[in-house]
Amino acid sequence: MADWLAALDRRAELRAKAGLTRRLHPRPADDGMTDLAGNDYLGLATHPEVTAAAAAALSAYGLGATGSRLVRGSTDAHQALEDELARWLGTDGSLVFSSGYLANLGALRALVRPRTLLVSDAHNHASLIDGCRISGAETVVTAHADVAAVAAALAAAPGRPAVVVTESIFSVDGDLAPLTRLHAVARRHGALLLVDDAHGLGVTGPAGAGAVAAAGLAGEPDVVITATLSKALGGAGGVVAGPAELVRHLVETGRTFIFDTALPPAVAAGVHAALRLSRAGDGLRDELAERVALAVGRLRAAGLVVSAPDAAVISVTAPGPEAATAWAAACRDRGVAVGCFRPPSTPDSRSRLRLTVSAGVPRADFERAVDVVVECAPVPARDTEVVA
Amino acid sequence: MADWLAALDRRAELRAKAGLTRRLHPRPADDGMTDLAGNDYLGLATHPEVTAAAAAALSAYGLGATGSRLVRGSTDAHQALEDELARWLGTDGSLVFSSGYLANLGALRALVRPRTLLVSDAHNHASLIDGCRISGAETVVTAHADVAAVAAALAAAPGRPAVVVTESIFSVDGDLAPLTRLHAVARRHGALLLVDDAHGLGVTGPAGAGAVAAAGLAGEPDVVITATLSKALGGAGGVVAGPAELVRHLVETGRTFIFDTALPPAVAAGVHAALRLSRAGDGLRDELAERVALAVGRLRAAGLVVSAPDAAVISVTAPGPEAATAWAAACRDRGVAVGCFRPPSTPDSRSRLRLTVSAGVPRADFERAVDVVVECAPVPARDTEVVA
Repeated sequence: MADWLAALDRRAELRAKAGLTRRLHPRPADDGMTDLAGNDYLGLATHPEVTAAAAAALSAYGLGATGSRLVRGSTDAHQALEDELARWLGTDGSLVFSSGYLANLGALRALVRPRTLLVSDAHNHASLIDGCRISGAETVVTAHADVAAVAAALAAAPGRPAVVVTESIFSVDGDLAPLTRLHAVARRHGALLLVDDAHGLGVTGPAGAGAVAAAGLAGEPDVVITATLSKALGGAGGVVAGPAELVRHLVETGRTFIFDTALPPAVAAGVHAALRLSRAGDGLRDELAERVALAVGRLRAAGLVVSAPDAAVISVTAPGPEAATAWAAACRDRGVAVGCFRPPSTPDSRSRLRLTVSAGVPRADFERAVDVVVECAPVPARDTEVVA
Repeated sequence: MADWLAALDRRAELRAKAGLTRRLHPRPADDGMTDLAGNDYLGLATHPEVTAAAAAALSAYGLGATGSRLVRGSTDAHQALEDELARWLGTDGSLVFSSGYLANLGALRALVRPRTLLVSDAHNHASLIDGCRISGAETVVTAHADVAAVAAALAAAPGRPAVVVTESIFSVDGDLAPLTRLHAVARRHGALLLVDDAHGLGVTGPAGAGAVAAAGLAGEPDVVITATLSKALGGAGGVVAGPAELVRHLVETGRTFIFDTALPPAVAAGVHAALRLSRAGDGLRDELAERVALAVGRLRAAGLVVSAPDAAVISVTAPGPEAATAWAAACRDRGVAVGCFRPPSTPDSRSRLRLTVSAGVPRADFERAVDVVVECAPVPARDTEVVA
């Protein structure tokens, strides 16, 4: 009976030996850290209009939604947010889930019919991978951003329903998927394209409408967008946006929609306020792009191996998992929060720091933080080793 | 390409013909309805101490957690809530997820080792079923509350790791699983027992610590508790509670924990306030029990077929899905919100009204609402038909 705890202990020891221990570091409300780790890209989580809208809804509705969306949890705040999300994204409709993870699980399952083939990018987020898995459909994993491989996978399954599954801005390296070419290939084969725009929404595209809109694909009948409301929109929850038929299908059959308590109305209201600020936030996006360029320049000038970011996620290669942990800890000791990504959270077994840029951080603090990352870098950080 | 939308339409038409259409009914902040549908069992979602704690944290932290728990999303508010949840539940530790659905997916996957057998009750919630599925483990579904069937399934897999998976208070009929006997059988076979106490937490057990605590099983090394923070605690999110080794394992390997934005700190703080009120809420629980007895008595006296509730969930059988929908609509027209459960949301293909009792509803309104349910009942509501 107790041997399961001993087994968990043994696995923890193996992780510790490989430098893969993970620890929570709870932060106080004002921890004085400069944030190069979070996903609050536009600084809207603490914007006074956002917190005021949430506070008003908290007073009006109470803390939680008190039920699932179909039973008691749908409020005016959800409906208003969904309507405006669809208008912003350029889709027929949208449906809010209590998390981006559950939105992806729901969307993938909804798109699967008998004999459906899923074609999934090797760098896709865990929630997409789990969505493929839980859908029960045959899934082919193609090399990262490899349009030819996607075309080959589709060509090898003629006559079968298929869905090409990708992130827009990939969460670890911050690169943009070749959305236009993926869509062309998908359409040629009668397949759908599902794009998780979590790191693009609010950051790229016309009026911040995301990478799908930037690629001119919003509103196409064979494109489905998923996203989180917890990154540039500063809140929590997820969304699936696309044709009205899909939204209705999810309302009527989506297990992770139907059997889950709704997003708190106060969060929906706060996200709605953030959406309006984000739509009008071209100035914030300009500042963000400038900061990303500045950071990449300084990091590369210091000889570090840096990804080619298409939005606000920057990946800096570390020599290995222990060096990455030590690097992140050294930054933290100097007041800079950075992401430390190690296997199995990286798609290629390489360890990295992940730096996320926010327009909400004071500019001088941001520049100082980039310098801290450079100063704390292991030497030589450019020599990378692959961890099995 | 567009044939997928036509296929979704055809499926919607089939559901409509079977009386299984589902529509969202967004409610305003104060809709004047008497709530017999939500899960705010103690009325804490709108308690001034709960909303004040959430509002204070909203001011202090902002709207969202701005990142996953391991990267930037863990705050003092999460830590304080987890510590007090563990003390309340009587476990070594606890870990908060952004939803109860994701807590169940994470917990089940964490408990699965090579060759693990899952033994799952036929009435289990969708999130448990999906957790079994996503774990990849062989799953045997046993008849509802059938301890002998569980014992037989375990006996048929000697030497294999096994987990018995059950809800405590089942979400559709409100009956309590035979937890003590299930635990005895599990222990005899060296299996673990996972209990989803979503509808028990705050409602039953010593100081509201739930059905697992009521059965004397809290803190047992072979028992894992999951629950939602969105029902009696009035907020959102989920929790996995159990041995410290399990909590560490989930922090280090749980995909639905690691790759998901944390619960908003304001929600964690509000739930924490609700937890304290719930612990001290024996008076509320007495009132709740009295109301459940009153409702069951009046419904049965009217000749309705009513479940035998062990907490605050009451199921009333409807003749069929269309009659259930009409019954619920008639109640709504008279100002009473009730749950309308039809296939596939019911474990046995029978349609029902689900009435959930809350101590937060004014007593006179509650009694009137029960009378409205009786007055709107189809005649004869006791003649049930099974929908294929």
